[in-house]
Amino acid sequence: MGKQLTPACPFFVYVKMMGLQEIQLTDLQQVESVMQNALHAANSYKSIGKEQKADFLEEIAKQIELLGNDLIQTAMAETNLPEARLVGERGRTCNQLRMFASMVREGSWVEASIDTAQPQRLPLPKPDLRKMLIPLGPVVVFGASNFPLAFSTAGGDTASALAAGCPVIVKAHSAHRKTSVLVASAIAKAIKIVNVPENVFQHVVGRYDIGQALVKHPVAQAVAFTGSFTGGKALFDIANQRHRPIPVFAEMGSVNPVCLLPEKLEGEAVSLAKELAASITQGVGQFCTNPGLMIAIESDALVTFTEHLKEAIHQVAPAKMLHPGIAQSYHEGISSVFSDEDLTVLAAVDKIDDESGNALVATVPALVFLERPSLHQEIFGPYSLLVKCKDKAEMLAVVNALEGQLTATIMGTESDINQYTDLLNKLTSIAGRVMINNVPTGVEVCPSMVHGGPFPATTDARFTSVGTSSVKRFVRPVCFQNFSQSILPLELQDGNPGQIWRLVDGVFSKS
Amino acid sequence: MGKQLTPACPFFVYVKMMGLQEIQLTDLQQVESVMQNALHAANSYKSIGKEQKADFLEEIAKQIELLGNDLIQTAMAETNLPEARLVGERGRTCNQLRMFASMVREGSWVEASIDTAQPQRLPLPKPDLRKMLIPLGPVVVFGASNFPLAFSTAGGDTASALAAGCPVIVKAHSAHRKTSVLVASAIAKAIKIVNVPENVFQHVVGRYDIGQALVKHPVAQAVAFTGSFTGGKALFDIANQRHRPIPVFAEMGSVNPVCLLPEKLEGEAVSLAKELAASITQGVGQFCTNPGLMIAIESDALVTFTEHLKEAIHQVAPAKMLHPGIAQSYHEGISSVFSDEDLTVLAAVDKIDDESGNALVATVPALVFLERPSLHQEIFGPYSLLVKCKDKAEMLAVVNALEGQLTATIMGTESDINQYTDLLNKLTSIAGRVMINNVPTGVEVCPSMVHGGPFPATTDARFTSVGTSSVKRFVRPVCFQNFSQSILPLELQDGNPGQIWRLVDGVFSKS
Repeated sequence: MGKQLTPACPFFVYVKMMGLQEIQLTDLQQVESVMQNALHAANSYKSIGKEQKADFLEEIAKQIELLGNDLIQTAMAETNLPEARLVGERGRTCNQLRMFASMVREGSWVEASIDTAQPQRLPLPKPDLRKMLIPLGPVVVFGASNFPLAFSTAGGDTASALAAGCPVIVKAHSAHRKTSVLVASAIAKAIKIVNVPENVFQHVVGRYDIGQALVKHPVAQAVAFTGSFTGGKALFDIANQRHRPIPVFAEMGSVNPVCLLPEKLEGEAVSLAKELAASITQGVGQFCTNPGLMIAIESDALVTFTEHLKEAIHQVAPAKMLHPGIAQSYHEGISSVFSDEDLTVLAAVDKIDDESGNALVATVPALVFLERPSLHQEIFGPYSLLVKCKDKAEMLAVVNALEGQLTATIMGTESDINQYTDLLNKLTSIAGRVMINNVPTGVEVCPSMVHGGPFPATTDARFTSVGTSSVKRFVRPVCFQNFSQSILPLELQDGNPGQIWRLVDGVFSKS
Repeated sequence: MGKQLTPACPFFVYVKMMGLQEIQLTDLQQVESVMQNALHAANSYKSIGKEQKADFLEEIAKQIELLGNDLIQTAMAETNLPEARLVGERGRTCNQLRMFASMVREGSWVEASIDTAQPQRLPLPKPDLRKMLIPLGPVVVFGASNFPLAFSTAGGDTASALAAGCPVIVKAHSAHRKTSVLVASAIAKAIKIVNVPENVFQHVVGRYDIGQALVKHPVAQAVAFTGSFTGGKALFDIANQRHRPIPVFAEMGSVNPVCLLPEKLEGEAVSLAKELAASITQGVGQFCTNPGLMIAIESDALVTFTEHLKEAIHQVAPAKMLHPGIAQSYHEGISSVFSDEDLTVLAAVDKIDDESGNALVATVPALVFLERPSLHQEIFGPYSLLVKCKDKAEMLAVVNALEGQLTATIMGTESDINQYTDLLNKLTSIAGRVMINNVPTGVEVCPSMVHGGPFPATTDARFTSVGTSSVKRFVRPVCFQNFSQSILPLELQDGNPGQIWRLVDGVFSKS
């Protein structure tokens, strides 16, 4: 399959399946036409029926699956990720598309609300008012290096924007352009098969200046990004400095503190050590939710924990990281750890080469950690810092000093937690997701997920980039006042033809 | 009543009811303590029960009503608004507080969602995940000059933030400080009576530098503003340039286009003229939803409409505007209309003094309007510009040239609307609220209201500042993973003790 691909637009990169060598870069002049195409697509796509939109999302999933082993092999070659991981990620990506298809087909996600007229009300009659969510318009999505499928070309951002009714312009991540082109070809096929507007998805390949030009373009209505703080914050600033600012949801990672409470540590030091070692090193530590910070009170049990953590970490062989840039940053980060006199290396796997990530765990006294905010920053890769506290007060002080986080974890018995409710409250106030006795890696795609959190974890804590609610980043409410039935959107008509949940005169109902 | 008020904080201004002459200004040094007080209040207020929170909102309404005629007289003296309007606005303010109290008491607004665990799932078990909205923390609210009660001290922003569980710091509008102090005293009484944290509401009086210092302070978590573009945009920029950016919802007004379609104009020229003249001049034109722009196609009916509009406008006597600054801006605005050779004055009420707003309506050919974006801007007051189009294409071009709006209106018969669906679609794409055959002034407070819209009408089209949904500006979702029942918030416990609507494994239910 895939041999007779037709470009979806002039800038769509034609892929020769037998040799993906030549990927044409989009140049700055082409940005204008890309964005005009997106604008035209927006006007027709926003009013297509929900069945067709759901079919489209499902067809993308099907076409991605039809890419078969070519996709997996291409992604393996580009990202150094192992086959099993990529097969799993493809599953998540396709499930995610189908989850949004179900959401679109069911229809209640538009938050329809109806307040019926009261023409006799005094002193003034009340008009008929009806409200629902509508798409913002073209969304610029940036591929993420660490999720070449699930957070890139047809990943969560693209799926939620398309589900919202917004055209998408994907800026391919430079570390997996071939994979991105392949996935884009699957989307292009789905566009033709389901007959949605041709430019509802466009694929752009280029350097950072192309990404910036897309965000600056007046047609862009929103931006979704997953990656570094530097990259996300730069896009946020550009978007806010536009003549007409637009929302940016940038997920910029965090250190994901894990608090190890005394009784739990006492009872389960060995299994906790194994569990955390696995989480720290999973996928060469290249997850936004990697546990980069552990916080515990000094005790004999902590000594046992650290011994077993060391042992478990040493059993993990280094593997190649996603791309040389990430590996270089990681090695710079950990070399600063080795040379830091305030830090004690607890477990260090030997370096095998410049492209692989060798796991490292260091420890630091709480008082030093509190004095040095630079130690609070993420080192992306299989690294974690254990902060040793003298007592509960120090542990609380450490957590109080932390910035916004994607996740926060407590490892504790019920009795621990009862004694540390203030800690739990504090963790809840700084994180998007709080866990008890689970490791933070592993982000379930479901309605109750929050993959977000206070700045600098993201640029807007009020949204999530994983789960069905992620669609809310790309929609806005509109109120229709005094409309006759025939010109109201289906979702707001009296008969409720889609049988969706609506708030009618303040009461939830399907009637 | 009100004679024994106790200051809610050291900066709370003590009011002598018999002479409100001396209002102490907050100085910059005091901002630090105000914000630390807010932080402490946030920690206790976020966990108070929903009944107590609802009681508090209702008690504020009661205490405002107990201020009686003193409040109305004080507001009349400060704002030049007539008694009937202020009595009505007080009613809206108190109803709004009670509406939020009902919402809080009912409880489903937290958008609780539960995904139950699947321990046997392969390849990986699914953890128990539960999500709900929690308060962001201290919110800085700026009083609005044109709504001294409904959008100021205890107005929609304050009510929605308190309902969300956020402490509020109100920066009083300089044009009605005494009114603001009185309302603040009512809130202070309610705080004592219902026994919520003392500093859950703080009142600050000062110049713009105080407002900026509040927004810059690290403790501030969100900002709500209603006023000018210059003021709102400045706060938006400050908030985004903070070390940790925070969301700003600034409602900055718009020209609220009204499209008069041919058949409607043909049939109802006289009544439309009267209706629009009343809407343009209502409250001396000092509403964010004032119809500052009318768009019509030239015809005999339009001539009839303009003649009757002129007549109706001339019958409206000028009245004092809210404060000298607004009056001065208005007179500068309309003097530029008088001196503009491209514009034709259609109806001009004689000026009586510098403080009053004399209504003015001008006309301009569509082609000129299209060439001059400065004509698209709001002149706040009883002014409207009628854009005369040659045909439907010109009308569409005019609407296409407009920026984001709070409202957009079509005056049209069913047949008109069927012929102008492209116009309706375009208006929907640029506005927060779209109306058919209603004037835009008059903003109903209910769940289906949207008082928002694309930039520059507001700084974030995804939210509204009127209606129950306005609470969403001040909350964020948190996911609780693998929590035991006893430590889950009530809203997420299996038994659903509050009997709220929840999404359970993707299905809405109360069980």
